Amino acid sequence: MKEKIWEHIIAVREKSPLVHNITNYVVMNTSANALLAAGASPVMAHAAEEVEDMVKIASALVINIGTLSEPWVNAMGKALQQANRLRKPAILDPVGAGATPYRNTTVERLLSAGRFDVIRGNASEIIAVSHSSSQTKGVDSIHSSEDAFEAAKQLNEKYSTVVCISGKTDYVIDGNKIARIHNGHEMMTRVTGMGCTATALIGAFAGVTDDFFMATLSAMSLMGVAGELAAQQAKGPGTLQLHFLDMLHSLTREQFTATVKIETAHV
Amino acid sequence: MKEKIWEHIIAVREKSPLVHNITNYVVMNTSANALLAAGASPVMAHAAEEVEDMVKIASALVINIGTLSEPWVNAMGKALQQANRLRKPAILDPVGAGATPYRNTTVERLLSAGRFDVIRGNASEIIAVSHSSSQTKGVDSIHSSEDAFEAAKQLNEKYSTVVCISGKTDYVIDGNKIARIHNGHEMMTRVTGMGCTATALIGAFAGVTDDFFMATLSAMSLMGVAGELAAQQAKGPGTLQLHFLDMLHSLTREQFTATVKIETAHV
Amino acid sequence: MKEKIWEHIIAVREKSPLVHNITNYVVMNTSANALLAAGASPVMAHAAEEVEDMVKIASALVINIGTLSEPWVNAMGKALQQANRLRKPAILDPVGAGATPYRNTTVERLLSAGRFDVIRGNASEIIAVSHSSSQTKGVDSIHSSEDAFEAAKQLNEKYSTVVCISGKTDYVIDGNKIARIHNGHEMMTRVTGMGCTATALIGAFAGVTDDFFMATLSAMSLMGVAGELAAQQAKGPGTLQLHFLDMLHSLTREQFTATVKIETAHV
Repeated sequence: MKEKIWEHIIAVREKSPLVHNITNYVVMNTSANALLAAGASPVMAHAAEEVEDMVKIASALVINIGTLSEPWVNAMGKALQQANRLRKPAILDPVGAGATPYRNTTVERLLSAGRFDVIRGNASEIIAVSHSSSQTKGVDSIHSSEDAFEAAKQLNEKYSTVVCISGKTDYVIDGNKIARIHNGHEMMTRVTGMGCTATALIGAFAGVTDDFFMATLSAMSLMGVAGELAAQQAKGPGTLQLHFLDMLHSLTREQFTATVKIETAHV
Repeated sequence: MKEKIWEHIIAVREKSPLVHNITNYVVMNTSANALLAAGASPVMAHAAEEVEDMVKIASALVINIGTLSEPWVNAMGKALQQANRLRKPAILDPVGAGATPYRNTTVERLLSAGRFDVIRGNASEIIAVSHSSSQTKGVDSIHSSEDAFEAAKQLNEKYSTVVCISGKTDYVIDGNKIARIHNGHEMMTRVTGMGCTATALIGAFAGVTDDFFMATLSAMSLMGVAGELAAQQAKGPGTLQLHFLDMLHSLTREQFTATVKIETAHV
Repeated sequence: MKEKIWEHIIAVREKSPLVHNITNYVVMNTSANALLAAGASPVMAHAAEEVEDMVKIASALVINIGTLSEPWVNAMGKALQQANRLRKPAILDPVGAGATPYRNTTVERLLSAGRFDVIRGNASEIIAVSHSSSQTKGVDSIHSSEDAFEAAKQLNEKYSTVVCISGKTDYVIDGNKIARIHNGHEMMTRVTGMGCTATALIGAFAGVTDDFFMATLSAMSLMGVAGELAAQQAKGPGTLQLHFLDMLHSLTREQFTATVKIETAHV
């Protein structure tokens, strides 16, 4: 498993998949830098006039609802449908789902407009997407990953999409396959956009393999390991951020296999 | 006074108030990271469709006019009125006021739409907001804090709002209470969004105390001390930024009380 | 030549020209920080309601099409025409030209709306702007600077604009004057917005000299030297970024003249 993931990490570095992000203003810079550091090629484009053309040349589409408005939601729908038509992987990050009715409605609109291959959120967001009625405190999670587990399984069944719950332990769920990743560091929660970056990286890995369970597992493992090793050198959230980017870029097979902690199960 | 401020710093870390920012594109990432590093919980949302719902769950609203357009100005007005209705603190950062008629008009629209509990700007901005006729060079100040003092007093009287003028010396003014903060470092002016970050932090402190004079004084003291200590380790504006975030996160009571320089007066 | 460039670097630090950027969401923070570190004063404003007023007080206008939408394109046209009327320098960064028809059309609209003094792009972008038909992979170049040389000469003749092709070797072309800059470092391609930052810096230098060939050469030399020296201290793209900002701020004449590698020719 570790070997397979490492192969995907190398594939991202070598193939440099183009990841089309329609994402929020807060994390655009962070996500672009993380994609570049991991070896991928980011592009941000949100105009209805060009999203379909951009999806055409991209290897994956990442939709993140962190800072919404109507023109963006419309463009997200168009881009998603184009990705579905062209059989390109589409990833959803339902940032802040549950916090406002508008975010819930947007998620519902997107889920009826097309199909996502992967949905990644924190526990509160996954619960909100599944129930469209749960309470969320802003964009930070008030639920544990364990709470969200049932919600994730329902989402996975209903939409045939890989579901990832990120948190202290990350879960990746697809049918009877479940993986748990025990990496990362608490200080990562004090840096904005770490979740969004994880989703962007899932896009990169989905651009190099059709196995979206493995793509998600690979991205989350890379995040967790890079964050954990970065935290060891960091004095706070400022230095954590830059060591994290350095680590995405320079992580070695030895570092990765010595650090990654994954459990997999069939249920 | 120092003890009281330190209690507020601890309260932000412990209560993690949710700060709703409608702010400019340039500083969204910076402000979110500073809020997280200080222990608060940031959320950015600007759609007219959701700002009222977001204010509902937030502890404070921060409005920053750094990169304007009509849909945003409309949402700012709606959010402000909701904050007033729900008696949540509202903070204004009139970035670049005085630079263009559109910015002046926007400030006037906001000031007639509702009430702000705190207004923070550099000297030129405070003068512009007060006179709606002063000249500003872009977003950087061409006036000293001393020049802006009279303007701030007028603003404070007219709108019953705490006024903060940031600069080499920071002033916090409310009725007959005045505080001067002699912290910070010149190199902070070479990092974008430091003023906006200060305003976002005022939002965090206004989320943990109803005394908005003390909230503003606490936020500006934390900014000044963290910036000053960060500058001691920095080789330039790049390293300053990250040490600043680290310091917001890890500042100790000893460091704070040994560094902060505040004068208070009643006039 | 080196001495002349150094004088311009000092002029930016001393005169602190106000650079009005209508640029993309991804790099706004990065560009603002780079302008501040180099000593200039950035302002971002994109509303049709205020761009003409902002151009009035600015020393240069920088237009970057990295994240487009109709309201922004309209404002870009208005700002460009105002810059032309007031004889303020206007710089174009055609980010991702060639990637989608919308980007090509936008470039064409801007080039018919007004005149640019400098156009800077990577090889693919310069070819796309010149031919409006070339293929681009997202926002990263798939052509070498050498390929783009003919396209740049045509652009220069057709629009009487200085053209800069950035890449492993940077080219600056104006009539029979050509300069090649052999600085920079490969790792700079793993940090987002380095090209956009170069364009923003051209704006700063165009704000202190009317010789736009020299302004462009100065900006690109500063980028290349600061990036190269930063890379020597960097462990990855994260640390590169901050050392780059530090270097823009603290670069000395000795460091600059010892590092810069420029060839000039008349053809």
